[in-house]
Amino acid sequence: MITIPFKNKGQFLYEEIYEYLKNEIIAGSLKYQEKLPSKRNMASHLSVSVNTVDAAYGQLMAEGYVESIPKKGYFVCEIDTYFQSEKRAVPEKRSAKSEFETVKIDFSPNAIDHRIFPYDAFRKIFKATFNEYDLNLLNKPDIQGEPDLRKALVDLLYRSRGVICSEDQIIIGSGTDHLLQRLDLLWGRNKEIILENPVYLKAYNIFEKMGNQVISVDIDEKGIRIEPLMKHKNAAIYVTPSHQFPLGMSMPIDRRIKLLNVANQEEGIYIIEDDYDSEFRYNEKPLPSLQSIDKNGKVIYIGTFSKSIAPSMRISYMVLPETLLKTYLEIADQISSPVSSLEQKMIAAFIADGFFEKHVNKMRKVYKEKRITLMNALHQLGDQVSVTGENAGHHLLVQLGNGMTEETMCCRAMNLGVKVYPVSPYFIHGVSKNHQSMVLLGYGSLTEAEIYEGIGLLKKAWDL
Amino acid sequence: MITIPFKNKGQFLYEEIYEYLKNEIIAGSLKYQEKLPSKRNMASHLSVSVNTVDAAYGQLMAEGYVESIPKKGYFVCEIDTYFQSEKRAVPEKRSAKSEFETVKIDFSPNAIDHRIFPYDAFRKIFKATFNEYDLNLLNKPDIQGEPDLRKALVDLLYRSRGVICSEDQIIIGSGTDHLLQRLDLLWGRNKEIILENPVYLKAYNIFEKMGNQVISVDIDEKGIRIEPLMKHKNAAIYVTPSHQFPLGMSMPIDRRIKLLNVANQEEGIYIIEDDYDSEFRYNEKPLPSLQSIDKNGKVIYIGTFSKSIAPSMRISYMVLPETLLKTYLEIADQISSPVSSLEQKMIAAFIADGFFEKHVNKMRKVYKEKRITLMNALHQLGDQVSVTGENAGHHLLVQLGNGMTEETMCCRAMNLGVKVYPVSPYFIHGVSKNHQSMVLLGYGSLTEAEIYEGIGLLKKAWDL
Repeated sequence: MITIPFKNKGQFLYEEIYEYLKNEIIAGSLKYQEKLPSKRNMASHLSVSVNTVDAAYGQLMAEGYVESIPKKGYFVCEIDTYFQSEKRAVPEKRSAKSEFETVKIDFSPNAIDHRIFPYDAFRKIFKATFNEYDLNLLNKPDIQGEPDLRKALVDLLYRSRGVICSEDQIIIGSGTDHLLQRLDLLWGRNKEIILENPVYLKAYNIFEKMGNQVISVDIDEKGIRIEPLMKHKNAAIYVTPSHQFPLGMSMPIDRRIKLLNVANQEEGIYIIEDDYDSEFRYNEKPLPSLQSIDKNGKVIYIGTFSKSIAPSMRISYMVLPETLLKTYLEIADQISSPVSSLEQKMIAAFIADGFFEKHVNKMRKVYKEKRITLMNALHQLGDQVSVTGENAGHHLLVQLGNGMTEETMCCRAMNLGVKVYPVSPYFIHGVSKNHQSMVLLGYGSLTEAEIYEGIGLLKKAWDL
Repeated sequence: MITIPFKNKGQFLYEEIYEYLKNEIIAGSLKYQEKLPSKRNMASHLSVSVNTVDAAYGQLMAEGYVESIPKKGYFVCEIDTYFQSEKRAVPEKRSAKSEFETVKIDFSPNAIDHRIFPYDAFRKIFKATFNEYDLNLLNKPDIQGEPDLRKALVDLLYRSRGVICSEDQIIIGSGTDHLLQRLDLLWGRNKEIILENPVYLKAYNIFEKMGNQVISVDIDEKGIRIEPLMKHKNAAIYVTPSHQFPLGMSMPIDRRIKLLNVANQEEGIYIIEDDYDSEFRYNEKPLPSLQSIDKNGKVIYIGTFSKSIAPSMRISYMVLPETLLKTYLEIADQISSPVSSLEQKMIAAFIADGFFEKHVNKMRKVYKEKRITLMNALHQLGDQVSVTGENAGHHLLVQLGNGMTEETMCCRAMNLGVKVYPVSPYFIHGVSKNHQSMVLLGYGSLTEAEIYEGIGLLKKAWDL
């Protein structure tokens, strides 16, 4: 008869019995087809209640260690030997970012100013949005995105970017990356993807990982070059016309029309307009979007709240031309939305209640002042330094004319605690001649004092 | 000289000048290389200030309609003719779900009970989480997911599912669909994907859309059949061992070991364990996960908060074996997390503060009672009705033995205002013989009275 050495480790008794028997079966001490004692016998033998044994046998049966044959009793099931590979992989620990040097001033092009975030508005909105009476708050989000948010966007995008669309054409996504992946689902792998060079690297990587043929086309001072686009017949052209990333120029109207005409002349050509930070243009009012000029349903317009609200809120949007909508919805019907209903509702209220425009106007003013400060500080560096891409966004580019390489610029800056961002990684086939010795300086999160201190240190680092 | 018919539509003066000139250029009235009046002349001619003209010219230059040639003046740029296709696509309106009949009782397998959602706990947690002092609240989420949430999950998954992992192995995603797409990025298109038949359709659709070879393998009463798996060398096998979807059985230990051994014997084979509703098991304690038995790093464990918190919270998690981690992180480094930091932090606190387990225990009790009610109600239908898959989750299956087809069952039920869900769509190659005349009845969102009313109506609808 089986003897169970009760250990009383705080488990239930039935768990001890279950575990003991399970281990005996795995070890082969109790063999296939061996009969277990009846519940009553086992209970009396172990001096526990029949219910306890019943629970243990129940669990063993549920997991498939034991089966009950009516009128015969309980029998051990056949359990395969478990094969184990001899060597086990060594754990790959995730490396902490190897930044030995302490960063004092970080000119990150992605940072925003935390101090102007409208905490109170969001508190109010949470209170108003999160309540027992809105059952949709707990339901799966609408596959295209919350209707309230799409409605708010139709209006907002028309006023701010000239985008003309119905709420049916809007897809809410969880970041630009996510929407680009969705586009890939729409087209499959045969579509060539044409990207600007230099380029927003995440877009490049996403399309490449997806297995599409990815082609990069150099830009000139007006944006993506037109001539290399002409020979393609089945392609999507990804551009950042408002504010080329990373170089910062905006595409003039003539190039915009030429680009649209490339698409207008081939049925298989579409344009993806990533309008990622169009809210932040300082000298003129924002340029109208490509989508607003497009009359043939050739432009897929993508925008995000990463820059205008916060990078932590993973909400972006895409306006699909009507021609693509039907196919997209057939696919979307099979895939859930990745964006939480609660945050969608909160952003919808943030826009509809007027907080969004107020906030963007405030931010534009703040960033404009930071930009002026940075430009003034850069004047101190003398005429070896030329500045470009300064009219929009949260970063500008600085090029050095004293022969120092980009790598040295970054390295020497870091030695003094200042982090600047090289432009070369954004070039797919190596940095072009005109963009040697060039770095990005972002100013979104820095104070006036930090900007002056940072530029003062760069002056020293770069021998100016 | 140009005359501008000011309309005073509430625009700024400079905007009217800008728009007028822009339209003249687009229309060709102002031609390429034509010289515009100097700012001063224009201003005096229009009786506006030079600053106003300056702003208008500035915008025209920024958009590329006009260029300034130093010491010569302002000239019209060359603008291409814009090609427009003759016919424009007809808008595809998104169709409202065509449910003419009013649904009185919906036996949806995906619904949860809104009445037991812990609104107050979430209000408390929002207050504690959303504040000015946590700068990470606004920053881009960690690519793998918020460390707090991953830490809470290590502990929770160990206690509830026997899953052994470090927080480094956890990836937070925005739903199971999203994580399956991520896996696709990891492997590319050469990996065969093997799915259970019948299957969770979204998984099937995702892998198919991704362009992988998708193979479906029939299940028997223990789960996925082993023999058809043997010939594969480079495949991922997607299974739902805790609670097969949709049929509801759980995989016994012997089949689990056999399945793991298939993976143990081929380097290229992995198992994806979708443990989507393991929290809800009513008769025995939940079966340990496949991941907890796996000793060779062959199981990718996926779970979600859709069922245990709410479908609107798009948060899921994946535990990667260490062998896959390095490759994954290289990719993840290039793609942003789609999950909002705020919600990740809120769920982390919900778990760490003990609310999660309390809530799940409460829900388990509530669903267990609903399930008993449903079983009792089903007894009324007599012995033409057999019930399966009732031990776990939020739904069970009902099969009719009176010769009525599945389609008629659904249709007749709907005519009386009761929505039941056919099992056949989950079968890839048509429903198998054993699963004819079978429907899913979900009970997550129904009250006791609704369950009795619904089953009463089904009795009538199905001639029982």
